[in-house]
Amino acid sequence: MIKARVTVTLKNGVLDPQGKAIEGALGALGFDGVNQVRQGKVFDLVLDGSDKAQAEEQLKAMCEKLLTNTVIENYAISID
Amino acid sequence: MIKARVTVTLKNGVLDPQGKAIEGALGALGFDGVNQVRQGKVFDLVLDGSDKAQAEEQLKAMCEKLLTNTVIENYAISID
Repeated sequence: MIKARVTVTLKNGVLDPQGKAIEGALGALGFDGVNQVRQGKVFDLVLDGSDKAQAEEQLKAMCEKLLTNTVIENYAISID
Repeated sequence: MIKARVTVTLKNGVLDPQGKAIEGALGALGFDGVNQVRQGKVFDLVLDGSDKAQAEEQLKAMCEKLLTNTVIENYAISID
């Protein structure tokens, strides 16, 4: 069993209205000094097997095919 | 300027239909051996100042008040 985490974030330059809204809401709640907020996604996966190199290959394929929109998003894979 | 990342994940036992749907979609795409998928959120923040301890306190307050639903979600703060 391999536990992995895939973190998906917007590429630089891609507008993030959700992040902007959170930034505004934090300001309205009295949190000063928040310069930027950008929101992303995280996927925690549990995979069969114990070959970490193979798992990483498989996770990359999952990101390219389903988990990430590679036009506007970056992904990072970390395996425990 | 302090860069921080807040990772919000569902607590154990909380149903995650979105994660289940992704799990099913990965299976349909031919990815075998995926036992569990759970989706969470990540917030990348840029804060003014340079006091990391103070930033962490502020981030905790942001999580408790806005970023996290602490009934069903956990959060983790990491500061660069």
